Amino acid sequence: VPPRAMCSGKLQTGLLVAGYFVYLLVGAAVFQALERTAEKQQKMAAAQMKEAFLQNFTHLTVAEIEQFMKVSNLTEAIQNGVYPVGNESQIEKSNWDFSNSFFFAGTVVSTIGYGTLRPKTAGGQIFCVFFALFGIPLNIVFLHRVGLNRQGSSRKDRQKMGCILPNKFLTLLFFLVTGMLVFLCLPSLFFHITEGWSYSEGIYFAFITLSTIGFGDYVVGKQPDRNYFSYYRTLVAIWILFGLAWIALLPWPLTAQSTLEMLCVR
Amino acid sequence: VPPRAMCSGKLQTGLLVAGYFVYLLVGAAVFQALERTAEKQQKMAAAQMKEAFLQNFTHLTVAEIEQFMKVSNLTEAIQNGVYPVGNESQIEKSNWDFSNSFFFAGTVVSTIGYGTLRPKTAGGQIFCVFFALFGIPLNIVFLHRVGLNRQGSSRKDRQKMGCILPNKFLTLLFFLVTGMLVFLCLPSLFFHITEGWSYSEGIYFAFITLSTIGFGDYVVGKQPDRNYFSYYRTLVAIWILFGLAWIALLPWPLTAQSTLEMLCVR
Ligand SMILES: [K+]
Ligand SMILES: [K+]
Repeated sequence: VPPRAMCSGKLQTGLLVAGYFVYLLVGAAVFQALERTAEKQQKMAAAQMKEAFLQNFTHLTVAEIEQFMKVSNLTEAIQNGVYPVGNESQIEKSNWDFSNSFFFAGTVVSTIGYGTLRPKTAGGQIFCVFFALFGIPLNIVFLHRVGLNRQGSSRKDRQKMGCILPNKFLTLLFFLVTGMLVFLCLPSLFFHITEGWSYSEGIYFAFITLSTIGFGDYVVGKQPDRNYFSYYRTLVAIWILFGLAWIALLPWPLTAQSTLEMLCVR
Repeated sequence: VPPRAMCSGKLQTGLLVAGYFVYLLVGAAVFQALERTAEKQQKMAAAQMKEAFLQNFTHLTVAEIEQFMKVSNLTEAIQNGVYPVGNESQIEKSNWDFSNSFFFAGTVVSTIGYGTLRPKTAGGQIFCVFFALFGIPLNIVFLHRVGLNRQGSSRKDRQKMGCILPNKFLTLLFFLVTGMLVFLCLPSLFFHITEGWSYSEGIYFAFITLSTIGFGDYVVGKQPDRNYFSYYRTLVAIWILFGLAWIALLPWPLTAQSTLEMLCVR
């Protein structure tokens, strides 16, 4: 590779990384601006509802309580992440703070979409569509550039594949096994310790995240009774980023061919 | 194409389609078997809790109600899709009926992962990991085969691209615009009517689904106060299937190149 081209390649990578993070930061700011007010209003409504309930509850009949729970949208409020338990100070603490908004922007462009935080205003939803429209391709390009500079070997992959040499197969196996250890087994153990999940729950969470299925049933750093070290969520974000890059950079056609050859299909 | 090869190609496609649906059906059956019992136990516990609450509520103080809501896991039960409102008959109606389990299996292999239904037992979670491990690649292969038999043109796409001919550009534009009409605009209007969502909510839902982000905030056929026609969810599943196939079959490198050329970047 001539030095001029290498330098230009590094500049491009730098611009891409900078552009990627600026995109996420701007997105986070817009989501926050659009959603915070609506969320506060819903929280205040839930608090007022609870107030009214507690003031009257000694005079209510069983049927009235049933009715109250049915019409009060309490179920909906809880599903939307508004917890009507505890004191007023909760109303001030927004789910759409900057760190959460940034994390949300990341779950959109990676298509993980946990859904624990979701835009509820029409503006937020429309912005989300356009943010994903440009953000998903940007994320794919970013994942292919970040971490590993595989320009040379990706050209080799595109060559017409013949029979896989044992050497190449061993390299692939090494890349697969090392990756699974670093991106699945170790993080699972880590989550087992920090979150108190069982080891199988840790594996489940790691897999559901890196496969971008993202059910949102397990999310890190959200248990109020646990103490997390600072930068815990940043470390998790770095794990997701490099884990997704590892998956994107796996030579899938080669992996498929190796698997077929192992199964003696041809 | 010689007739022998064509026939073998059709046989392969047939086997793939059959294999795909058998995979989903078997997966649905296993998820149902693993999850239904645990769900029933949780529902019964929630019902008992409510019973105890309603029997004692005239003797409870405000502080006791607060405490009750805090420790009763009511919030968790609602987040897990257990609604403690209404009569006992709800306990018999499982979320993990076969149709829902099948839909769940589909959201796993497509990586949409709405998360409205999620495995809660360790067995279900471990099975989910292995089901996705083989199901996601199967789904990708399936999407590339189903609907359009583009064997010939995909070989053409792989050729080194020069300047795009205006003719090719127009074909691409037609494929893009028609697809957006058929898979985004029309379905949005359809959901606007059947679900009573605003048109922007319909666009938001269609986009969040086909991009496989899948927050799970909007899900079809779930509003208890609306009457849906039979096979409504089947029609939606067909839309998702062909929508994802359309996205998978879009010539992405060509689209990227066209966009760059339109922006006069080279
Ligand atoms: K999701
Ligand atoms: K997803």
